[in-house]
This record gives sequence, structure tokens and C-alpha cells, in this order.
Amino acid sequence: MIVVLAGGVGAARFLQGLVQIVPQEQITVIVNTGDDRDFYGLHVSPDSDIVMYTLAGLVDEKQGWGIRDDTYNTMQQLVKYGNEDWFMLGDRDLATHIHRTRLLREGKTLSEVTESLRERLGLQLRILPMSDQPVSTHIQTSVGLLHFQEYMVQRRCADEVQDVLFAGSSAAKPAPEVLETIRQASAVLIAPSNPIVSIGSILSVPGIHDMLHEAHGMVVAVSPIVGGAPIKGPADKLMSGLGMEVSALGVARCYRDFLDVMVIDEQDAHLTGAIEDLGIPTVVTNTIMRDGPTKAALAREVLRAAGLNDLLQ
Amino acid sequence: MIVVLAGGVGAARFLQGLVQIVPQEQITVIVNTGDDRDFYGLHVSPDSDIVMYTLAGLVDEKQGWGIRDDTYNTMQQLVKYGNEDWFMLGDRDLATHIHRTRLLREGKTLSEVTESLRERLGLQLRILPMSDQPVSTHIQTSVGLLHFQEYMVQRRCADEVQDVLFAGSSAAKPAPEVLETIRQASAVLIAPSNPIVSIGSILSVPGIHDMLHEAHGMVVAVSPIVGGAPIKGPADKLMSGLGMEVSALGVARCYRDFLDVMVIDEQDAHLTGAIEDLGIPTVVTNTIMRDGPTKAALAREVLRAAGLNDLLQ
Repeated sequence: MIVVLAGGVGAARFLQGLVQIVPQEQITVIVNTGDDRDFYGLHVSPDSDIVMYTLAGLVDEKQGWGIRDDTYNTMQQLVKYGNEDWFMLGDRDLATHIHRTRLLREGKTLSEVTESLRERLGLQLRILPMSDQPVSTHIQTSVGLLHFQEYMVQRRCADEVQDVLFAGSSAAKPAPEVLETIRQASAVLIAPSNPIVSIGSILSVPGIHDMLHEAHGMVVAVSPIVGGAPIKGPADKLMSGLGMEVSALGVARCYRDFLDVMVIDEQDAHLTGAIEDLGIPTVVTNTIMRDGPTKAALAREVLRAAGLNDLLQ
Repeated sequence: MIVVLAGGVGAARFLQGLVQIVPQEQITVIVNTGDDRDFYGLHVSPDSDIVMYTLAGLVDEKQGWGIRDDTYNTMQQLVKYGNEDWFMLGDRDLATHIHRTRLLREGKTLSEVTESLRERLGLQLRILPMSDQPVSTHIQTSVGLLHFQEYMVQRRCADEVQDVLFAGSSAAKPAPEVLETIRQASAVLIAPSNPIVSIGSILSVPGIHDMLHEAHGMVVAVSPIVGGAPIKGPADKLMSGLGMEVSALGVARCYRDFLDVMVIDEQDAHLTGAIEDLGIPTVVTNTIMRDGPTKAALAREVLRAAGLNDLLQ
């Protein structure tokens, strides 16, 4: 089993490459749920949904989230009832949140709900939320404490970042099978996701960070920062707000105590020495995932870095 | 204040006439909530919605329910997740149920939620659910006890009716202001709605039936049965299942202990004597509401029957 720690868009694209090389049945995705939030009383799990919609071929590729060619009629009417409209939820997308919310209210866990959605979407890989308990990522900014979605989507990352908090994480437990799957995995791959709010949120759940030290397989990360800027999302603002260097080196420092190999982009080849000074062997390759072949090529490099050459026939 | 006891489509059409004659601010609708049911974990109030959508000019006139030109994308996706699809809920319509469910979960009463929807839909009349407590109409049939929506929509009234039950009614209380509004109304009009499941459900809430005896104004009903058959819906099957005559006379018998005047269609003029034998004065007029003018004409006749000639200038 190969484990992938995943945020949203970057992870979903990385997984599109991985499933070209490795049978889905051999992949477990542990997905960030710190971005989850209720909208209109419905439980929205943005990163789970991005991963599932992408692998199911439903995603709106251009925006990276939501369902392709979706309509927004429900939301338009909700706005007429005085509801907020800064988080776009399409009509088909809403079905996911309605279904999830119903099952949660009926007493199912988030893991069980995610498993049910995965199956209905025809996916063969296993998707585990990082926790069945609520963890919600908040950003301390100059205007106060904001839920991550408010910081990112509603206020478009405009506020100065002072700190990042994972509310609920100290009481949260890893979802069933998360720890055991990490321990026994032939490799743990850290997708090119935001190291602070996506991977950092997963690592905030007690037990997961420690288990990365005990994992039998190698732990290999792909830098989401290329040439000093994230491919997508606000990783730069979060990292610099926390006093970190916005670079593949800064990312490597986030993971230094458990990371076996760092994979960085060719544009960042000059950082190899500095990352290896941390004691982390580094692989330089093209990490920009433009299309199917470049995604598959990156997955191949990462599997090779993890010592899984037998998968690369 | 004029009170109208209301079910769905028939009541909504009757109200379209009434609002042509009487300012909306002088009308209180007490609406059946016995047909309410959860779909996909969302609280659907069919009769409230039909009345509100109709008066707001949003209704799909052809089917009598739902929002005109609505789409069904959310529902299509919900079906892919294994949900049932026999109760059609459009995307815009779903916004109403999502909004209602959210407010109910936040602790608002059904009255408060209905008031909020009414206001947002730009309606000036007052709409009161019969009760803030759940009452759910069930039909005892040859195949067992069915929720009214299962009997009517899912199984298309195909089962032999043996009894009608209003689950929850004995513990339910009239919603705030229901009793006092009935008492003080200048008239209580019983819309041409199903006497068993729409009006009967309202009357099942303890206190409402008794208050009709104490009402200061006259109580006037319009028969929903014309020429031995209902204009719409399964009133005939329910009435005959309960051993009642399917006619305006059968309807009059349902209401005989509190009714002051019965309004029946010209086709049923021959029933006048039998209804008056019950001690109920009867008005014969055209009750078939084809268009705006015929709706207004019926409202005028009903107001005249209620002794409210001063409203008919």
C-alpha cells in the first residue's frame, strides 16, 4: 500500500499521475479535513471533494474544484433568502454536501461517509479523512481570527498572516486505519500541497506526525513551491507570515524531522545543497504537472525516490 | 383579519383570487404541515411552499408545485449517490428546504422559519403553520401504514385506503397566534382543499377544531369536490376509503359541526337541499378557478357568503 498525504488541487493532480502507474487498489489517500466548513448547514469537505471529483473525472479542470458544467441555481435562490454567496457551490456539488450531511446526522462517521461517496463515484483507491473529529484551520490575521475559508475565499488572502491554528486538533484522533496504514505503507508520499494548512493540518492530529517516524516505508515529499512561489494557493503568504522562507528549502524544513527524500523542481536545483545540508537527500525533476504524461512522469520519479523501482516496469 | 385554512394547490389558487379583493395584510393563512417530510435530510413543507411560491408568482403553474423553469441537477447527483428519486425537488426549490432545515437546526421554530421565507419572497400576508410540532399524516392501506407522500407521490394513490392517522397530533400545539387569530377573525374561510388530509390534518391539532366553534366570524367552506370528483388530488379515494360520500355533501358532513356556510359548484346545485338539511346554508356558484377573473369571482362570492360585503366595494 502506498500512502499519499493530500490537500486539494495539487494533491489531486499528483494523484492523477500516480494512478497511471500504480493500481488504485494499492493507494490510500489521507486527506486534509481542516478546511471543512458548514455552508447553509451542509458539511463541505473541500479537499476530499477535489480529490474525488478529480479522480472520478468530474472536476472542473479549469478551476480545480467543483463539478464540470455545474449550474448554480440553488445557490442563487439561497442568496435570495439572505444567505452568503462567497463560497461557490454548484447544484451537482451540493448533492455531495447534502448526502454527506444527511449521513453524518444519521450517525455515520466522516470516514464512513467518505467511503460511501468514493464507492458511488466509482473510485478504487481508499480515501481516509485525517480524522473523524472536527479540526478547523484558522488563520490569526491583523483583522482577527478567521476560518481558513474566510481567509482564503471570502477575503482572498488579503490579511496579514500572524499565526495558524488547528482548532479541535488536540482532541481529535486519527481516523480508523490512518496510523496503521502509515506504519505499514511501502511509502508515504507527501503531495505537493500547502505545507502549513494542508499537510500541517494533517500533522496536527495527535499521533500522525509521530507515526511518520515509525513508518516502514520511505517518506518522500514533493515541493509545492517552485521558483519561490506556490503553483496554486496561498502557501507563500502563510509561510512568510510564519517567518519561513518561501522556497522548496522552506518546505523541506517543515518536514525535516521525518522526511527521507525531497523532490524539487528543476528551477530550484540550486537549493539541492541547502536541503541536503538538512540531511535530506534531494531529487530534482520537472514537478510542473501540465498534462497526463508530465503527471505520470512526476509520479514515476517520486516512486523511484521512494525506492519502489519494482512498480516502474 | 380573514383566516384561510389551507392545503396546497387548491388553497393556493383560492388565495390568488382572495388577494385580488382583500389586501394581503388582512389575510392570515393557516397551512397544513401534516404532509411535511424529510427528503435527503432536508425538511420539506409542501403545502407552505405551494402557497408561498404561488403567491410570489414563482410556482410552476402547470404542475401546481415547485418553481417555474427549475432544474433538477442536485437531485440527479443525489440519485447517483443512491438516494430515492420519487419526490421531485428542483434546484431552486431545494434552496428553500436547505434554508428551512438550517434555521430549524439552529433552533428556530417552523413558524419563525416560515415567516422568514414569506418575508424574503416578498409576501405581505401572514402564513402560520398549523403547528410548530411535527404532525405527519399517514394512510393505513392494504399494504400497511404509509406516510402521505409515500401513499400519494411514490405509490400514486394505488393502495386501498383503510384509515388516516395524524401521527404526533395529540402532542402537538397550535402554532403561536393560530387560536387567537381564528377567534378574532372577521371570517374563517376553508379553502377548497382535501377535507381529510389537508383540512383534517389542521383540525387534528388539539384546540383548532374547538376554536372554530368560538370564532367571532363566520366559517365558510368551499367544496373541493365538484361533480363527484376532486379538482386535483386523491380526496375521492380518501373519502371513499373512510366510507364517506364523495361529493360536496360528503365534504359538508366533515365540517357540519362548525360550518356556517357551504359554497358549492353549480354542477352540484342538486345537493343544496341535502346540505341545508344538515343545517348549513349553501351558496351555489362557479368554483372552478380557471384564471384570474374566475378566482376573484369565487373569492367575492365566499366573502359575500361570510357577510363581509363591506370588502366588496
